[in-house]
Amino acid sequence: MLIKKSTRRRSIPAVKIFALGGLGEIGKNMYGIQYKDEIILIDCGLKFPDAQLPGVDYIIPDFRYLLEHKDKVKGLFLTHGHEDHIGGIPYLLKQLQIPVYGAPLTIGLLRAKLEEHQLLSEAKLNIFNEEDCVVFQYLSVEFFRTSHSIPDAFGMAVKTPYGYVVQTGDFKFDFTPVGPSPNIHKMAAIGERGVLALLSDSTNSERTGTTPSEKLIGESIFDIFQSCKGRILFATFASNVHRLQQVVEAAIATGRKLVVIGRSMEKVFIIGQELGYIRVPEGMIIEPKDTNRFQEHQLVIICTGSQGESQAALTRIASGSHRWVQVYPEDTVIFSSSPIPGNVVSVNRSIDLLMRAGAHVVYGSVLDIHTSGHGSQEDLKLMLRLMRPRYFVPIHGEFRMLTKHADLAEKTGVQKPNIFVLEMGDVLYLKPQQGQIGGKIPSGETLVNGKFVMNMDQEILLNRLQMGNNGVVIAVLMVSKDTQELLTGPTLISRGFVYVRESGAFLAQTEASLKKVLSSKILNLKRQAWSNVIEETLDGIFKEKLGRSPYILPVIMEH
Amino acid sequence: MLIKKSTRRRSIPAVKIFALGGLGEIGKNMYGIQYKDEIILIDCGLKFPDAQLPGVDYIIPDFRYLLEHKDKVKGLFLTHGHEDHIGGIPYLLKQLQIPVYGAPLTIGLLRAKLEEHQLLSEAKLNIFNEEDCVVFQYLSVEFFRTSHSIPDAFGMAVKTPYGYVVQTGDFKFDFTPVGPSPNIHKMAAIGERGVLALLSDSTNSERTGTTPSEKLIGESIFDIFQSCKGRILFATFASNVHRLQQVVEAAIATGRKLVVIGRSMEKVFIIGQELGYIRVPEGMIIEPKDTNRFQEHQLVIICTGSQGESQAALTRIASGSHRWVQVYPEDTVIFSSSPIPGNVVSVNRSIDLLMRAGAHVVYGSVLDIHTSGHGSQEDLKLMLRLMRPRYFVPIHGEFRMLTKHADLAEKTGVQKPNIFVLEMGDVLYLKPQQGQIGGKIPSGETLVNGKFVMNMDQEILLNRLQMGNNGVVIAVLMVSKDTQELLTGPTLISRGFVYVRESGAFLAQTEASLKKVLSSKILNLKRQAWSNVIEETLDGIFKEKLGRSPYILPVIMEH
Repeated sequence: MLIKKSTRRRSIPAVKIFALGGLGEIGKNMYGIQYKDEIILIDCGLKFPDAQLPGVDYIIPDFRYLLEHKDKVKGLFLTHGHEDHIGGIPYLLKQLQIPVYGAPLTIGLLRAKLEEHQLLSEAKLNIFNEEDCVVFQYLSVEFFRTSHSIPDAFGMAVKTPYGYVVQTGDFKFDFTPVGPSPNIHKMAAIGERGVLALLSDSTNSERTGTTPSEKLIGESIFDIFQSCKGRILFATFASNVHRLQQVVEAAIATGRKLVVIGRSMEKVFIIGQELGYIRVPEGMIIEPKDTNRFQEHQLVIICTGSQGESQAALTRIASGSHRWVQVYPEDTVIFSSSPIPGNVVSVNRSIDLLMRAGAHVVYGSVLDIHTSGHGSQEDLKLMLRLMRPRYFVPIHGEFRMLTKHADLAEKTGVQKPNIFVLEMGDVLYLKPQQGQIGGKIPSGETLVNGKFVMNMDQEILLNRLQMGNNGVVIAVLMVSKDTQELLTGPTLISRGFVYVRESGAFLAQTEASLKKVLSSKILNLKRQAWSNVIEETLDGIFKEKLGRSPYILPVIMEH
Repeated sequence: MLIKKSTRRRSIPAVKIFALGGLGEIGKNMYGIQYKDEIILIDCGLKFPDAQLPGVDYIIPDFRYLLEHKDKVKGLFLTHGHEDHIGGIPYLLKQLQIPVYGAPLTIGLLRAKLEEHQLLSEAKLNIFNEEDCVVFQYLSVEFFRTSHSIPDAFGMAVKTPYGYVVQTGDFKFDFTPVGPSPNIHKMAAIGERGVLALLSDSTNSERTGTTPSEKLIGESIFDIFQSCKGRILFATFASNVHRLQQVVEAAIATGRKLVVIGRSMEKVFIIGQELGYIRVPEGMIIEPKDTNRFQEHQLVIICTGSQGESQAALTRIASGSHRWVQVYPEDTVIFSSSPIPGNVVSVNRSIDLLMRAGAHVVYGSVLDIHTSGHGSQEDLKLMLRLMRPRYFVPIHGEFRMLTKHADLAEKTGVQKPNIFVLEMGDVLYLKPQQGQIGGKIPSGETLVNGKFVMNMDQEILLNRLQMGNNGVVIAVLMVSKDTQELLTGPTLISRGFVYVRESGAFLAQTEASLKKVLSSKILNLKRQAWSNVIEETLDGIFKEKLGRSPYILPVIMEH
């Protein structure tokens, strides 16, 4: 009898938790919570590639596990409308028709995105309110409002038979927010009812203290606006709607008209006004071409490009290539943002160009012109204390951020064996008395390259890196179909390799050397061997004479 | 008479100051001071390229002006031995045989560099001491010791008929240095004697306060070493000899042996010991292969890679590809460095890999494990006050740093019209009563690419960027020499373009489409027109079907 009892206890089904993105990286957040044959998905983001992935537009999660378990996936729940949380959705919905749930602004931004992909008509979009509870057979999903750098940010509390699995989304605790306050009472109530596992945002886990309130930034913006005599160019993230509203208010208070520039900024102003998140008095927004009807101290130009992105408005303005706007010496340019690590160099380049044009540039930590949307250590500890989870999984962050967050969890009372720093694809099995990492599900990087969606292909990327760094040399030759004799060539053609003026003589010499090698060897060789001889011969010459390794491509034609 | 007098005064020759590198950029520092037909050069550095210059190894100054005035160039004076101050010298000496003057360590590092380029035997190298004065017909050069992140850093005081032109080199004021103190008495004396112009290091002009002393770091290193139970991996700049000496001393104090890893680190340990800048007890340095003869708490591995450079020792160790050293869970890895903006992403990647392997990683501003070698605002103001220059030229820095330094100069009493934020190639004409920017001399970026030294070639770089991002498609066809008819082809060959599994059918279809277009048009077309038709047709197809633009290269052979 005892044995039987123990067997029964061991065999209760586990709540499974896994991530297809967002662990060990910043971006393409996507999490799954599974119980029996029900899977709830949270977010489906994209990530921007670094220099190691040349030509890749963005990276999305690997959906294979979901496609293999199509029938189990009950719905996709969105914490907020940032690209690293919703950017992958069009690619998912092309393969998996599931209902999507989000707050009003999130769904508004998603609609625009699906429209671009011509997916809007079939999509099953649902708007939730904080009071809603979405109920499935075993699992149900509740929501609690947080504060973040975009309105309508929510945490998810997924009710399972063993308690809640809480996923915070991106959050900080802003007790003087521009929009509604984070709902700490509901968080406390969920904590009271019992949290099996907390999955919490680790982005700023390396920062001590608390993250400053958005309201402080509003005050700085007003101070700067008041002191500026000329035009103001204000660059920030288009999605930071509260920041935009504060700019609008500072502009009203200082009697300035608003010019909105940059595709995503224009889109957000339209959606934000439609949904009531941005309130602009009638006639305050003017067209770029009408700016010369106003004096300089009557204008604020609000624009994209705060990260130095090459195609964004402010970057074009800085380099003098924007259609409507130039910089003038009396302008004040405000970078209301903090450059992400990969963008520091390009942001600095923009700042320098603007300063050279004579503008006064406000950037960096000079003034309180930006605050993060992610909680620092004290915010994270408050969330841990509110939720009092049995198990803790740090999410959203590179490995060292996850590790730091795990330390914080231990300090706030989570048992060390109950803290799991997961890797992508790990499946965490949770039961009331036992948590452990089980098998692996497929999880990798899917690359989006134009209209092309592909798995990571090392060969393509290595070829690109080599050609991108050293150029290409093509050796064309023609052989007789019958005798396999060399008819013409080899002719060398290069691109991105050597400086044009010097290349003529050098390539002619190399051609002659190659021809000599080929004619001495060719009779005994098969086609593939020819390619090898050509590659080795040329590679040897280029390395010796130039110290370089272009991509060498033999083209052998038969006639 | 009056008129004649005034003409005479206006016609006195000016002291000319120009830069071939280091203004508006960090790197490839090179400055010229000219009076009549004497040119004194200060430094000749290199710069590392960013992602916009694919495949370029480094960038050196454009020497054209110097080559056009060979006879006037009297000597090259080196402030210190960092790459951004001496890295361009081999390329200069290949074209211009001039004497070079440097302090002992600087010349030691330069010798090693010239040896690699097989230039050592002809080079005219001179070691100066602080008391020396190098005298030419009109100009003479004196030296004053500063403190920086490499020993033997000196400022230059070039005596001209109108007073000294002082170039600080890279400096901070470290009053508790590891090596000798900065010679503020000599600086004060030069300031007393009269400084026509001060050219001063702007790298840290955006930082308030003073830059912390190197000694503080030594204390932190000792504290960390004392608390570590396992091995210590210590990564820093190889040239930071004082830091290395402090590591040696902490290792002695805690009974650890030293393993030196990384090519440049090994080189510095050899040169540094030869010249007496690094003092290591006999038998303390052991070979990497002998590490297993010691216990883990008896080892310090000092290595390159503190900037996450892809080929450096620590980067290889982190990725598990180093020949001798692996990371173990009990290791402590110390990044004694601050990542330069372009390297933040790769440094973070190294940190994450090391933490995943279980190591304890000390990085960032967690502890006082790094200090800059460049003075902050209070250091810069002290230099300005000591020198009391009539004219001021901020050097070594991007535009916003130069601008900030110009502000500081004004605040410390330099007249605003006497402050010149120069661009590269500007020539500043200074007379006792008048300073103005005159003409331009050639100054640009010379690119070093393997053994190839070339001027900026936009076409090569654009080709590389396009191939690097989108791959290449080659269309090969053969036409009859006599009739200009299409004999075979077009055959499409691609690299780095589309995913191999999908490419076969797609490329075959595209071939067929292209063939159709060509056969309908070909009779009336000349050769160049063929290329255009091929490029346009393929570009249209690729954009429409894939949303991509590979580099298209038509190869038309005759037979």
